[in-house]
Amino acid sequence: MVPIFRYQEMEQKEENDLNLKAMNAEELREQAHKMVDFIADYYKTIESFPVLSQVQPGYLGKLLPDSAPTCPESLQHVLNDVQEKILPGVTHWQSPNYFAYFPSNSSIAGFLGEMLSAGLNIVGFSWITSPAATELEAIVLDWLAKALLLSHDFFSTGQGGGVIQGTASEAVLVVLVAARDKILRTVGRTALPKLVTYASDQTHSSLQKACQIGGLDPELCRLLKTDSSTNFALSPDVLSEAISDDIASGLIPFFLCANVGTTSSTAVDPLPALAKVTRTNNIWFHVDAAYAGSACICPEYRHFIDGVEEADSFNMNAHKWFLTNFDCSLLWVKERSALIQSLSTNPEYLKNKASEGNMVIDYKDWQIPLGRRFRSLKLWMVLRLYGLEGLQAHIRSHIAMAAYFEELVVQDKRFKVVAPRTFSLVCFRLLPPPNSKDNGNKLNHDLIDLVNSTGSVFITHTVLSGEFVLRFAVGAPLTEVRHVKAAWQILQEKATALLQIYH
Amino acid sequence: MVPIFRYQEMEQKEENDLNLKAMNAEELREQAHKMVDFIADYYKTIESFPVLSQVQPGYLGKLLPDSAPTCPESLQHVLNDVQEKILPGVTHWQSPNYFAYFPSNSSIAGFLGEMLSAGLNIVGFSWITSPAATELEAIVLDWLAKALLLSHDFFSTGQGGGVIQGTASEAVLVVLVAARDKILRTVGRTALPKLVTYASDQTHSSLQKACQIGGLDPELCRLLKTDSSTNFALSPDVLSEAISDDIASGLIPFFLCANVGTTSSTAVDPLPALAKVTRTNNIWFHVDAAYAGSACICPEYRHFIDGVEEADSFNMNAHKWFLTNFDCSLLWVKERSALIQSLSTNPEYLKNKASEGNMVIDYKDWQIPLGRRFRSLKLWMVLRLYGLEGLQAHIRSHIAMAAYFEELVVQDKRFKVVAPRTFSLVCFRLLPPPNSKDNGNKLNHDLIDLVNSTGSVFITHTVLSGEFVLRFAVGAPLTEVRHVKAAWQILQEKATALLQIYH
Repeated sequence: MVPIFRYQEMEQKEENDLNLKAMNAEELREQAHKMVDFIADYYKTIESFPVLSQVQPGYLGKLLPDSAPTCPESLQHVLNDVQEKILPGVTHWQSPNYFAYFPSNSSIAGFLGEMLSAGLNIVGFSWITSPAATELEAIVLDWLAKALLLSHDFFSTGQGGGVIQGTASEAVLVVLVAARDKILRTVGRTALPKLVTYASDQTHSSLQKACQIGGLDPELCRLLKTDSSTNFALSPDVLSEAISDDIASGLIPFFLCANVGTTSSTAVDPLPALAKVTRTNNIWFHVDAAYAGSACICPEYRHFIDGVEEADSFNMNAHKWFLTNFDCSLLWVKERSALIQSLSTNPEYLKNKASEGNMVIDYKDWQIPLGRRFRSLKLWMVLRLYGLEGLQAHIRSHIAMAAYFEELVVQDKRFKVVAPRTFSLVCFRLLPPPNSKDNGNKLNHDLIDLVNSTGSVFITHTVLSGEFVLRFAVGAPLTEVRHVKAAWQILQEKATALLQIYH
Repeated sequence: MVPIFRYQEMEQKEENDLNLKAMNAEELREQAHKMVDFIADYYKTIESFPVLSQVQPGYLGKLLPDSAPTCPESLQHVLNDVQEKILPGVTHWQSPNYFAYFPSNSSIAGFLGEMLSAGLNIVGFSWITSPAATELEAIVLDWLAKALLLSHDFFSTGQGGGVIQGTASEAVLVVLVAARDKILRTVGRTALPKLVTYASDQTHSSLQKACQIGGLDPELCRLLKTDSSTNFALSPDVLSEAISDDIASGLIPFFLCANVGTTSSTAVDPLPALAKVTRTNNIWFHVDAAYAGSACICPEYRHFIDGVEEADSFNMNAHKWFLTNFDCSLLWVKERSALIQSLSTNPEYLKNKASEGNMVIDYKDWQIPLGRRFRSLKLWMVLRLYGLEGLQAHIRSHIAMAAYFEELVVQDKRFKVVAPRTFSLVCFRLLPPPNSKDNGNKLNHDLIDLVNSTGSVFITHTVLSGEFVLRFAVGAPLTEVRHVKAAWQILQEKATALLQIYH
């Protein structure tokens, strides 16, 4: 006899114990509607929070118990805690007064896509585990390749294709590893300690981290010096010289990461001239346009990636400035087999006819993790609910607001714009008073602290040629001209106050 | 004069062009309520879909246009396409008839947590970018460490701590890299090609992939043979011998990945005995309990990770069997400084007082990517909305259903259970008829194809000691005893049909 009674007993007990079922369509409906209202109310009141959280380290441990609850609690109880305990510790990236780092766009379409993806909750490592997840990703990346006027080599219909990574860090790691293994297949594994990576000193720290993870000699990650004479772009001559020196020392140049829109100042490396150098020297040419790539769907900004047709791989983050919720980093490669050779695994428990027949893409072999979310849904929804024209308007409005901010800075002679504004980032600083002992670095450090501690605005900084510089990055979807004006007013007021003390 | 009119014009144009605002509280509310109903209706009708998608490769390209739309479309239009074009290509991981691979739980609480995290859409790389995200993560991982009775060394209050990775693949990669760099700091970087990694041949393919990515010699990733004599667990003697041989050959053993609940058959490696071997040989001891770790919150299953107190790192996936939506992989380490030494970066543009003062955790230095989602929210909501008792009931119900299925298999003499059922996975096969030329592999291959093509159930396979074996993994939150019964009935029917052909 099958002891069926046991399971009935168990199910009964479960019903009594749990207030909320693990899953149930009607309970999900009821609770999720409450959550929608909570989130909509958050956006309604988002300007009432300090943009940069003002809590002290360890604040939350004092507010929460030190063990997980034994018994279930109600959603209302949890939402009260979110309001009272969590939100004070949140730095509000979606606030219209957020001008820090680079933006990380949440949009209605992106949010809806996240909801749908979380609702289906599939794990799309192989085609078979949800053909729609793989196919929609390839299609949407082809759509965007087309919108960006990428060459056909980057389309999935050829030898290349696009893939959604979590972040630009992962994108650069997978192409670095693919390039590493490709050259090692030629020169032999023992050459690993001789491989040299190149980028400008303005490149994102993720490149050095990728070298560390990939077992490359960190000393051979050459971050070539830039300065204001090239607007902090990498000079092809400097690159050529470094490569020649390394070859002369018996080393093996194998990878260049060029940047379109660096993190510090949105510098743009000269892709066509760099491409020539990489071609001559058989170097993998990666173009990182994590932030600025989004702008290139506008015809008037497309020229910033001229030369990308010579690249081996190209990356932009839809989660930065393309209305797609985090995370969604788009990577295109010309030679997908290079990725697959480095990253594929084929354990028995994942084998299936479609994969064995080489009829399909299995994105697990294009990325670091095995599991993967249905990320293309949100990008697809963004493209459809806004259309390319809507996205172009979004980009243009932010760039126009940054240009406006730049003009405001220029008109106040106490300030200086320290690097050309190319996209929606303005790098500027308050000039130290004449005869000041401070070169301006302390002054601007103090200024940013004063401004951010108001809670009314959040901006961050960088250092360019030794100068501490303020970064004003426009890009939050809720930002309007009035927020830019208000931010500038706070900056002016705090500058006035500081200069009085400095005098 | 500041040319303010330009921006007004632009804003006007934007309003005319976009049907849906990039972000707006009331429009978000309206659209997100629609999406809630769509998702709730999906769960209501989930049993009406074939569990395993039955589409052919390339199906979606025929249904979608080949360019992104220029103009915005309506949400209703997109949802119609989801229903008609996307859902047929979805393999329904949340179906109660899904018994493939391992489960990937979606729950009401997990879904609500995803919604909230997507709504806030913060990027929590450093403490300052949302202190609540970092602090809640440390707190919730401490809660779970407590629930799992991990030793205090794994708590964030000591030298260790927990962190949420995307997947177990990323977890094993970061500890492998930390272990690699730790030993290289002692023996020198030139020893990289001599480093040896160990695991059983049942370990997950992510270990080999991590070795590939980390620049380790793939030939020196030793997957030690197991068989049914140890129920496919790694023998400490076999490990000892391999290590001795490698040392004798001048190689450097440095990493062991032990498994609690292997992917093929949920085999459990003997942690205490393996720990002795690693201690003697100064080897990093990682315990991968990606699937089975969840069960260890039940006192009666906790003994399966006895010995974890000797480990350097421990991993379980809350997104598998802990009601937490994908992705959410929990990693604990005893020595967080080892992770940080390998993975930290400190670019100027991310510097801030809290980080510089070493007062806070910056999780960017515990993981591969820089950016990170607010993943702890969903885990916290799962713990609070279900409580530990609710989670234990969930685990127990699945194990009871798997035990029930196992009894059903045992009662049908045409079938055989081929590995002990320890958790909620049953490994079994249909026995070939006497005098059959087939050893049963083709028979079971045909059986699984027949069963999965009904669309009424989805199971996957593995190979154990050369035998093609069917895996029946219970774990979807909607699964009830009736679904297990129905699945067994289909298996029996198709077996009967097949055996008639084979005779």
